[in-house]
Amino acid sequence: MIRRPFSVHPRQQLLNAAPRHATSWPFWAGKKSSVFPTGSDHLGVFPGNNIGTMAEHLSQSELDYPFKLLEYFNGFRVSKVIFSACELGVFDLLLRSQEPLSAQHIARELSTSVDGMERLLDALVGIEILEVETTDGTALYSSTDVANLYLAKGSGKSLHDMIIYQSQTIYPLWNNMVDAVREGKNQNEKTFGLPPEDIFQAIYRSEEEKLKFMGLMNSSWVLDGHDIVTAFNLSCFQEIVDLGGCTGALAREMAKAYPSSSVTVFDLPQIVETAQKHFSQENNTVVFQSGDFFSGEIPPADLYVLARIIHDWPEEKCLTLLRKIYDTCKPGGGVLLVEAMLFENRRGPVMAQIFSLNMLVQAEGRERPPSEYIRILNKTGFHNVQVCRTGKSYDAILAIR
Amino acid sequence: MIRRPFSVHPRQQLLNAAPRHATSWPFWAGKKSSVFPTGSDHLGVFPGNNIGTMAEHLSQSELDYPFKLLEYFNGFRVSKVIFSACELGVFDLLLRSQEPLSAQHIARELSTSVDGMERLLDALVGIEILEVETTDGTALYSSTDVANLYLAKGSGKSLHDMIIYQSQTIYPLWNNMVDAVREGKNQNEKTFGLPPEDIFQAIYRSEEEKLKFMGLMNSSWVLDGHDIVTAFNLSCFQEIVDLGGCTGALAREMAKAYPSSSVTVFDLPQIVETAQKHFSQENNTVVFQSGDFFSGEIPPADLYVLARIIHDWPEEKCLTLLRKIYDTCKPGGGVLLVEAMLFENRRGPVMAQIFSLNMLVQAEGRERPPSEYIRILNKTGFHNVQVCRTGKSYDAILAIR
Repeated sequence: MIRRPFSVHPRQQLLNAAPRHATSWPFWAGKKSSVFPTGSDHLGVFPGNNIGTMAEHLSQSELDYPFKLLEYFNGFRVSKVIFSACELGVFDLLLRSQEPLSAQHIARELSTSVDGMERLLDALVGIEILEVETTDGTALYSSTDVANLYLAKGSGKSLHDMIIYQSQTIYPLWNNMVDAVREGKNQNEKTFGLPPEDIFQAIYRSEEEKLKFMGLMNSSWVLDGHDIVTAFNLSCFQEIVDLGGCTGALAREMAKAYPSSSVTVFDLPQIVETAQKHFSQENNTVVFQSGDFFSGEIPPADLYVLARIIHDWPEEKCLTLLRKIYDTCKPGGGVLLVEAMLFENRRGPVMAQIFSLNMLVQAEGRERPPSEYIRILNKTGFHNVQVCRTGKSYDAILAIR
Repeated sequence: MIRRPFSVHPRQQLLNAAPRHATSWPFWAGKKSSVFPTGSDHLGVFPGNNIGTMAEHLSQSELDYPFKLLEYFNGFRVSKVIFSACELGVFDLLLRSQEPLSAQHIARELSTSVDGMERLLDALVGIEILEVETTDGTALYSSTDVANLYLAKGSGKSLHDMIIYQSQTIYPLWNNMVDAVREGKNQNEKTFGLPPEDIFQAIYRSEEEKLKFMGLMNSSWVLDGHDIVTAFNLSCFQEIVDLGGCTGALAREMAKAYPSSSVTVFDLPQIVETAQKHFSQENNTVVFQSGDFFSGEIPPADLYVLARIIHDWPEEKCLTLLRKIYDTCKPGGGVLLVEAMLFENRRGPVMAQIFSLNMLVQAEGRERPPSEYIRILNKTGFHNVQVCRTGKSYDAILAIR
């Protein structure tokens, strides 16, 4: 039942309005390098990123020496420095330790070579994820608040599972990006020997892979969930169903923000089972229900959430799913899409553009600009489409039946 | 014969002095985000990078939302966006074209899917490597000066070959960084099925791989060669031999800067042959000579150049080689080492730290701080060691017999 007329949060923004936060890549662009060390004039002024205006060239100074290009080339090695440390348990050990540790100590605890560990630790210091102090010739490493919060396993905001998935599944897939662009299809077969047709058969190919993927989704909503569920005031929706809600992380944020609403996670039986086994929480505020939103029925509700579902599939499948939702949705109810939205002018945000390439190499879908979501939603009968860019990784699109 | 006393260039710097350019990573760090769009206050102030002082934490704002960490996580995907476009020939086509092209046109010319190409082009626009203008609903893409200069194949400053090697050889190697750190040794076997003992057998394992590696070295000296050869005034050295000089790119820069000196490239027979076949230039100013500097004799000279040689090998092998050079070197002559030098305080430069991890995963060596080069050089009899940080990727160390 809808308790009061649909209302929107003041944060909601008009289509194509500037995002609340800078979402262009790289986010340091557009700053005059005023506080650089003397002599760094070649760094000059990197291009402005005024969304909606013509992007400028990389600056003249980049023509003199391509510092920025070389950073881009080295991006994969920086990623792997962090990923490798995470996989080896460096951040967990440093969080547990009450004092700075030597490379020898860390290597012994984590069963690695001292030499390799020392180089890895130094690179982590270089990118300011760790700190080092040298006393009497011995370098002692300690963690930073950021590493403790996001890179160690224990913390409530840990991105550990996201990292594992990116390092072990996404990184090898992207090694076949050339073929993905050439063929216009995912590279599950070439990368993992899996059939390209059934993307979730690939994603859930083993208990281990399924857990890793669910960990990724969980990390991601622990990070972005609160911004997503408060992008609009959804308190008018009594019964909320998160279709493909995976571990329930986003649903829990929903239940926290709207305590008077009931929130149900709807997902495939194997996912519901694993979610309850590995991701359940005390005082669980959400209900799990098994089913297949393509082949079966979906439960009636006031609001359906589709978080990173539409971007997995080609348009026809999205239309089929949205029509089914439209038919089951209570009058005055709606649908909330959660995706990384492209700009209409094709100039960003880089994160969303990269996610769209990720959908190419791993799935069957794509990321879209607001106009595409409006078109698809209107085509299936929804109206009053409203868009909120959160300025973080994921955005929200709300439409009413 | 030495014509006049050894002298150094004014650019030469004291050990551990601040580099001429900011070489810390990321180079945008330390800037107040003064010109960000309104609302981007969370971006706050990234840590200063005052070399030699204690590195600060990532800022409080990063604790609120890990924008910078997420960029690091996505580094590998940004690298692969550029690498893939390079491998597919996007930059070459756009350079040849006299007008902006549609994704359809580019896809047809390069035999790729339109959908995949469009996403790739848009991501390249997002990172400001390409430009886009939409007219009458059609997006037309054009290149930037930076892409024409560094990413297209034709240009004299092209980094095309460096990209191919990074994308096809280094990227897969780094997928085994966890094992490299664990075992403390290279991952040629796990990555490519090659024996880990003979690193150059791995690097030169096929004609194609050898050419790619030589292309990498060539790109790299086309970029950094001039700064390296002018780091010190070397005009006093009459006969210069570049040991392991590969394609001769650095030797040619040497010959250009010191036209009165004779410059010889000394490398393995198969490398000399390939260099002369694929990398020769008209008006060749350098001489090639075949041999093996470990197992055979080296030619007498006033100055020996070892550019990225010392970093390949464990200390014992470096000492053996430097002793051989000392014994053959003419009195008053010297040796010029070219390497990416670490800071003594372990806090950077990130590029050198990353190269050191690269030596772990691909070779038997490491990068070193100046003190280590001084120690090794003194141990083999060289003295008057002088160090010049160029502020770019590679630095120079000069020592006298």
